[in-house]
Amino acid sequence: MGTKCLIIAAGQGSRLQQRGDSKPLISILGIPLIERVIRSAMEAGVDEFYVVIGWQSGLVRDFLEQLAKRLAIRITPLVNEDWEKENGLSVLKARDVLQEPFLLLMADHLFDPELVRALTTHPLPDGEVALVVDSDIHNPLVDIDDVTRVSVKNGKICDIGKGVTDFNGFDTGIFLCSSAIFKALDQSREKDGDTTLSGAIRVLAEDGRAEAISSSSGFWIDVDDPAAFKRAEKALLDRLRDKPADGPVSRYLNRPLSVIFSRHLAKVDITPNQISLFSFLCSLLAAGLFALGGYFALLLGGVLAQFASIIDGCDGEVARLKYQSSDFGGWFDAVLDRYADAFLLFGLTWHLLAVKGNGWVLFTGFMAIIGSFMLSYTADKYDNLMRERIKAGIGTKLRMGRDVRVFLIFLGAATNMVFPVLVVIAVVMNVETLRRVMVALNGQD
Amino acid sequence: MGTKCLIIAAGQGSRLQQRGDSKPLISILGIPLIERVIRSAMEAGVDEFYVVIGWQSGLVRDFLEQLAKRLAIRITPLVNEDWEKENGLSVLKARDVLQEPFLLLMADHLFDPELVRALTTHPLPDGEVALVVDSDIHNPLVDIDDVTRVSVKNGKICDIGKGVTDFNGFDTGIFLCSSAIFKALDQSREKDGDTTLSGAIRVLAEDGRAEAISSSSGFWIDVDDPAAFKRAEKALLDRLRDKPADGPVSRYLNRPLSVIFSRHLAKVDITPNQISLFSFLCSLLAAGLFALGGYFALLLGGVLAQFASIIDGCDGEVARLKYQSSDFGGWFDAVLDRYADAFLLFGLTWHLLAVKGNGWVLFTGFMAIIGSFMLSYTADKYDNLMRERIKAGIGTKLRMGRDVRVFLIFLGAATNMVFPVLVVIAVVMNVETLRRVMVALNGQD
Repeated sequence: MGTKCLIIAAGQGSRLQQRGDSKPLISILGIPLIERVIRSAMEAGVDEFYVVIGWQSGLVRDFLEQLAKRLAIRITPLVNEDWEKENGLSVLKARDVLQEPFLLLMADHLFDPELVRALTTHPLPDGEVALVVDSDIHNPLVDIDDVTRVSVKNGKICDIGKGVTDFNGFDTGIFLCSSAIFKALDQSREKDGDTTLSGAIRVLAEDGRAEAISSSSGFWIDVDDPAAFKRAEKALLDRLRDKPADGPVSRYLNRPLSVIFSRHLAKVDITPNQISLFSFLCSLLAAGLFALGGYFALLLGGVLAQFASIIDGCDGEVARLKYQSSDFGGWFDAVLDRYADAFLLFGLTWHLLAVKGNGWVLFTGFMAIIGSFMLSYTADKYDNLMRERIKAGIGTKLRMGRDVRVFLIFLGAATNMVFPVLVVIAVVMNVETLRRVMVALNGQD
Repeated sequence: MGTKCLIIAAGQGSRLQQRGDSKPLISILGIPLIERVIRSAMEAGVDEFYVVIGWQSGLVRDFLEQLAKRLAIRITPLVNEDWEKENGLSVLKARDVLQEPFLLLMADHLFDPELVRALTTHPLPDGEVALVVDSDIHNPLVDIDDVTRVSVKNGKICDIGKGVTDFNGFDTGIFLCSSAIFKALDQSREKDGDTTLSGAIRVLAEDGRAEAISSSSGFWIDVDDPAAFKRAEKALLDRLRDKPADGPVSRYLNRPLSVIFSRHLAKVDITPNQISLFSFLCSLLAAGLFALGGYFALLLGGVLAQFASIIDGCDGEVARLKYQSSDFGGWFDAVLDRYADAFLLFGLTWHLLAVKGNGWVLFTGFMAIIGSFMLSYTADKYDNLMRERIKAGIGTKLRMGRDVRVFLIFLGAATNMVFPVLVVIAVVMNVETLRRVMVALNGQD
């Protein structure tokens, strides 16, 4: 790739003062704004950064130094003493170090890496600038009174500024610039005394040298004031709920609740693996309560099992929010889930044996355990190869995943109807496994 | 690749008459010789074949036609009416169709694809011929009185023939030829009236145009007479035992026995999946015998379980012998094995509960089942990624695979010491799973 990236992080962000001294270092869901911007750019393929700092430059510089080490990337700070003046002056600080086309981002604009990726593969004609323009003028994440508006015609920017009335898009703050941007800043200053970035774009737009890359989807948000901060937090959390692999219970019950927990968990120093372990211990405790006997312990165990299932969503969510996803984490979580499932079902079986200990109870409990296991095993074994084949046969709506399994356990415990639930799990899990074998067999060459 | 391949399959093979009318069609472990040669060449990257046929040419032609369809390759038969004469005449039949360097193989020489692969990547100078020479002059698969001997010096063949006394290698029958071979055959005929392939090689050797590609490892065998046929069968079976992933019980008990079964199974019309299913049904029956109660049923169940574990090796062996390996087959076998393990352990638990039904028995049985499952699950989940990491921590000798598990079950049943065996399985399997989690955790970046 090799695209370099300039990030403007010089401002004070006085409207967010209550959240921290330096705006780029304000944490949103556990990660500072500037780190989120850098991480997103990295996901789009950038690994060399220039950051213009100003207000509290010592603090920001120290943070960037540590971040560069932690992520093994190059970050060069450029100081702008005139950080109180307009943002074009910050861009000019990069004049001597950036010649080839470079990305230009704002430290307070969060965005989906997809939006940047569209730019890095874009061929930029010499002397031009390209801006990602949000053409969804009803975007609920945008503060219409504060956003920089853009008027686009035939892929070119005609006008740009907060006061533009005849607009059809918004400035996302994501630019691809040639060095023409520096000259345009000079011209704008000489002509109108305007040293804003928008001013320079206007100069380029007059000659048809400001391209608009329109996008109507793709998340972005300008984190400018407390209201925007809340919107951004909510948007980041909402994105966690968009997991196509989620089963019905996950989608409509567990995920909405786990996201609420994750919002708080992200802000403290807890790792995803610790969350996995905590959820597992809750399940173990629930299994113990089942085995204890009596309806009260059964009910309590059921509630605890369902709680553990909800918390079990948080490990992945926090990992995604804090860029801590790892292969080990996914594997560890899966291993603990299998143990948890087995213990829960064994607890229920034990409970039933104490009430009416006959062979059918034992056999049903055994079949429920093995069926649950097989369902995970058949999906995971030969991951890439077989999963596709098996998926082809599964309706996306009808998933008997862990979310459904634990919810059934909860229902059985709460209604004191443990045996029917064991029977249902035993039958459904094993029949589904058999069906998978059939699908895989038929898909055989 | 694009290398074409000429196979000489014209002879009668009178010394193997008792095994079939046409030598190339004689089956060895369920697959005709000519098919084995073609399959091995395919594994080395060849997909276009010319086969010189003679004796029983109608039969051979029909077989090749079906084989070409079945394997989706091109096979062109070339008829040699003078098949009773020397083998050089068969080679000459290809004069008009093969110009670029081509592989030359014998229909009755079985070989490891590696030996051919060494040739297909070999740059052959114009006007030369290369022969793979076996430099292991003590090779037990070679019949020293019948083999074509070769004298090699500095990578060139000096002399070749059955009567050569000063030799340091054997002719494997695997050649890479330029069209110079046809001219050399003419010259050999004119000069000495010799129309053998060896005669032509001698002509080329005189000018230093016969290269020797030496190999001291790599399986090959000339299946010429009943003794050689038996040696070949044994060698093919021995190769099945060379599986580095085998656990100790597999290596020293199961595999030597399953190979004996496979020898017979390969010759009948039974698929590997049918073998998997049969082994599974034996395990189910064994589990039922365990649950029945009483020492005699227990003993019988134990023996049957161990028998099933031995037979469980045959599916993969027959698949390898008959080129029937498939991803589905491996997956299906693994799924059945998990069910079989769970049922066997559940049968033992049931047996014990009838004798002395207390909670510890039930709990131990449960832990043995979940531990066995987890051991397979942790190995298979994230196959490629995690397996490497986990393997790094496992001593190659100390494997607690399925072979050991079932053998312990057999021992427990035979000695009527079921509870200790359940305890051992429960402890070892779960501790090993925990250890794997630790290894994976430490290997984390």
